Amino acid sequence: MKIRFEQKTLFCLPWTQTILGTHLNGKVNFMALDWLTRVNVNPAMLGICVNKNHASHEAIVQTGEYSVNVPSVAMVETTDFVGLVSGKRVDKSDLFRVFYGELTAAPMIVDCPITIECKVSQPVDLPTHTFFIAEIVNIYTEERFVTDRHLDMKKIDPFLLTMPDNTYWSLGERIGKAWNAGKKLMQQQQEK
Amino acid sequence: MKIRFEQKTLFCLPWTQTILGTHLNGKVNFMALDWLTRVNVNPAMLGICVNKNHASHEAIVQTGEYSVNVPSVAMVETTDFVGLVSGKRVDKSDLFRVFYGELTAAPMIVDCPITIECKVSQPVDLPTHTFFIAEIVNIYTEERFVTDRHLDMKKIDPFLLTMPDNTYWSLGERIGKAWNAGKKLMQQQQEK
Repeated sequence: MKIRFEQKTLFCLPWTQTILGTHLNGKVNFMALDWLTRVNVNPAMLGICVNKNHASHEAIVQTGEYSVNVPSVAMVETTDFVGLVSGKRVDKSDLFRVFYGELTAAPMIVDCPITIECKVSQPVDLPTHTFFIAEIVNIYTEERFVTDRHLDMKKIDPFLLTMPDNTYWSLGERIGKAWNAGKKLMQQQQEK
Repeated sequence: MKIRFEQKTLFCLPWTQTILGTHLNGKVNFMALDWLTRVNVNPAMLGICVNKNHASHEAIVQTGEYSVNVPSVAMVETTDFVGLVSGKRVDKSDLFRVFYGELTAAPMIVDCPITIECKVSQPVDLPTHTFFIAEIVNIYTEERFVTDRHLDMKKIDPFLLTMPDNTYWSLGERIGKAWNAGKKLMQQQQEK
């Protein structure tokens, strides 16, 4: 029997855990970030959602730039740490070794297998958050995370967050191929 | 050594696989949906990104309503099928048993462990897609998917998609607690 689930404000599917990189008052800052999605194919665009109270919000408003960094399971403690403490109170600038691409205010984390530098094109104002839509300027990885020209998730070893049980999860096993697993069903429908 | 990754337009992290439910010209329609994120806490809001060429896009423009349905691993073939064929050509209205909540054009799938009915509050126009920001009207589940008042991911058994390797993944193992795993590091930083 279907029930209405009470905690709608805390609703969460598993989201890939990332770390948001910004410049706040000229200094490198980081925040744990879960609310993001692709929003456009061409040009490649990404949207991230940041609470207006966060230091990173102010940082993005200042510079119009940010990075999205995908940590591996081995980085779970450091990633959690950047979500525990605010950049308003704690200087997180020396926590990670960083590098830069084309942008000057999108610090990327050397130890993260995937890093993305983004330039904001459209901030969408919402009651408690801003959804910062941005163009993906570049994506960086290392050869060791690529297999057959694809990013290899088993080598990257990303992790996910669910709320409000506040649990980090590893990525599981391959269970099928997309645009393929449903082909048998498609044939059955066509034969009807 | 860091390299620029070529396939930026196809960039993808693991996204939780969902099925979008709509009414198109008065008929139930479904589409595989991966690009979505929470965007606001209070009120609880969700944003989904739909290509302007998709039948579901027209459906949402018509009604201003949609549902997001979270299938379990057991539903991988049917889920993939709804992503393989367009509602413009194939009638997908009898594929799932559906139920309704408060909204009249947000059909929810009985067999999905989590279903969410949403009312569009703000469509954001982008070059190839529209990002439909919506209020979460209600979330539905069943008692058997709830443990200690939380949605139980092990019982729900959602799956994820990565592109462009087009692979479905199960959710893996618990690897840590959020807002907790970094506490040791926080203490070390405070003692500095």
